[in-house]
Amino acid sequence: MADRVSPHYLGIDIGGTNIRLGIVDGKGKVLIRYRIPTLKKQGKDKVIARLLRAIEFIIKKSARPVKGIGIGCPGPLDNRKGIVLSPPNLPDWKGVPLKKIVEKRFRLPVILENDANLIGLGENWRGAGKNASSMVLLTLGTGIGSAFILGKRLWSGSRGFASEFGHVSIDLNGPRCGCGNRGCIEVYASATAVARRLKEALKKGETSRVFKSTKDNITADGIYLAAKKGDRLSRRIVDETGLYLGAAIANIVNALNPEMIVISGGMAKAGKPLLDKIKETVKERALKESRRGLKIVVGRLGEDAGIIGAVKFLGI
Amino acid sequence: MADRVSPHYLGIDIGGTNIRLGIVDGKGKVLIRYRIPTLKKQGKDKVIARLLRAIEFIIKKSARPVKGIGIGCPGPLDNRKGIVLSPPNLPDWKGVPLKKIVEKRFRLPVILENDANLIGLGENWRGAGKNASSMVLLTLGTGIGSAFILGKRLWSGSRGFASEFGHVSIDLNGPRCGCGNRGCIEVYASATAVARRLKEALKKGETSRVFKSTKDNITADGIYLAAKKGDRLSRRIVDETGLYLGAAIANIVNALNPEMIVISGGMAKAGKPLLDKIKETVKERALKESRRGLKIVVGRLGEDAGIIGAVKFLGI
Repeated sequence: MADRVSPHYLGIDIGGTNIRLGIVDGKGKVLIRYRIPTLKKQGKDKVIARLLRAIEFIIKKSARPVKGIGIGCPGPLDNRKGIVLSPPNLPDWKGVPLKKIVEKRFRLPVILENDANLIGLGENWRGAGKNASSMVLLTLGTGIGSAFILGKRLWSGSRGFASEFGHVSIDLNGPRCGCGNRGCIEVYASATAVARRLKEALKKGETSRVFKSTKDNITADGIYLAAKKGDRLSRRIVDETGLYLGAAIANIVNALNPEMIVISGGMAKAGKPLLDKIKETVKERALKESRRGLKIVVGRLGEDAGIIGAVKFLGI
Repeated sequence: MADRVSPHYLGIDIGGTNIRLGIVDGKGKVLIRYRIPTLKKQGKDKVIARLLRAIEFIIKKSARPVKGIGIGCPGPLDNRKGIVLSPPNLPDWKGVPLKKIVEKRFRLPVILENDANLIGLGENWRGAGKNASSMVLLTLGTGIGSAFILGKRLWSGSRGFASEFGHVSIDLNGPRCGCGNRGCIEVYASATAVARRLKEALKKGETSRVFKSTKDNITADGIYLAAKKGDRLSRRIVDETGLYLGAAIANIVNALNPEMIVISGGMAKAGKPLLDKIKETVKERALKESRRGLKIVVGRLGEDAGIIGAVKFLGI
């Protein structure tokens, strides 16, 4: 009996490379997964048409009726009206009323929220931050996103534009960021920045056992792997990345005294060396009282986090 | 009739120099004010004995029964247990169970909270942030304190140690702060730091029409006054202070997207030149979406803010 009354939900995570869909039960368990490439170069109309077909497909596969659709999308977006504004990652999605489009088509409640916020909600509901009443999530990938969950509630800003942690500066005189500010953490510690910093070191004449030339295929993932295998230059780049992130996290800790910091995204692949350096830096830089009892951990839900968080945001 | 049922409350703001007490009605209006010098050099026992006498005195003066006592005190403190831990400003107050002491003596509900948090609550209830559902308060004085009010609720941290905004760094390689970190905003923009920076400029051979020697009585207030009168060096110091504060505020705006920033404390005396430079810097450095609609204003309640906030925190 209980089985019949517990409905299912659809969570969607729209990214620059892939769109992930998942049928999720009321306890946050992902039952069916489906992934399509975004192919953003096709233009937003074709991408949205394929998204709608994918929604139809996965809803048909669901064993129970789907009671709502939660969608995570790169910001900035208007989360009240459900409009995608102009994400750098989806350049031609300007003013797309995605909530309305999906609502009309499927006649279901739809929410739209910043992707990083939903990853945070997911990890807070079912993942690494499961029992934390306050946590800050950092997603470290091509860009750096964040989510602030304070007193069990997601804080998404007075107008929904909070959590732009990638554009928090750690050096007011630092290098110029694409956003116009200086010394944004994204300039130092995004996947792109990590690769750039190693290339810069090579240009200055430093040597690596793994990367011989700036023309090699140098990626953040490759650097983490090389660091684990003992490449000194790669190890230094990882250490410095931990210092930059740790300094930024110490600022969050002093300002907001969260119970937990959850780190997710591609950079989680750097593993223990990066996490250890982050922890060491936070210990050196944050106030003793503010960091007492603080946990700094890696996310547990991987690519499911955004889907699970999208369902949580539906108000389950 | 309504008059008879509306009770009064006592708000207290304990500072390093003065202790302020006020009888406040249920609408946040201060009806009676009383101030005693802290005289912290007498040691905590004598200060607390005088505080208790002052409470007795002002309660007797109240026209109506006092239904609760709210106390603001410099942090760090344990706001759940009501214990003052070890404020730099009251060095011998280590582990003082102030809530219990006052409760026992007066048999009334007592709360203890970080002073800056209560100033924030006061300004949010009755002052400059009256209609803001989210605001960040900065108190700029000998130190720099803050309060985060997000979604109409004070966020004081997972263990009550949030809001240490003075120890948020704007330069990870900046000058060493007393707390052990580098580049904390307090090192640049506290009243002490403002005076120090002008002295350093004089030592480097820069000249001021007002301050002839580092042996002059150089205070932040004096510098603000000199800047208003056209002293170029003082004006530059004020401008740089606005740049430092603006850079720090841009970080808050990108991370939390608050509706309003309220600036209070002694530095509010610097007035329009400082505020203008802060606004200009935030405009240059914060993301367009995150700062849209943002108000940056000076607090309105002056020295009453902490008293009014203490009463608000009683749960009125």
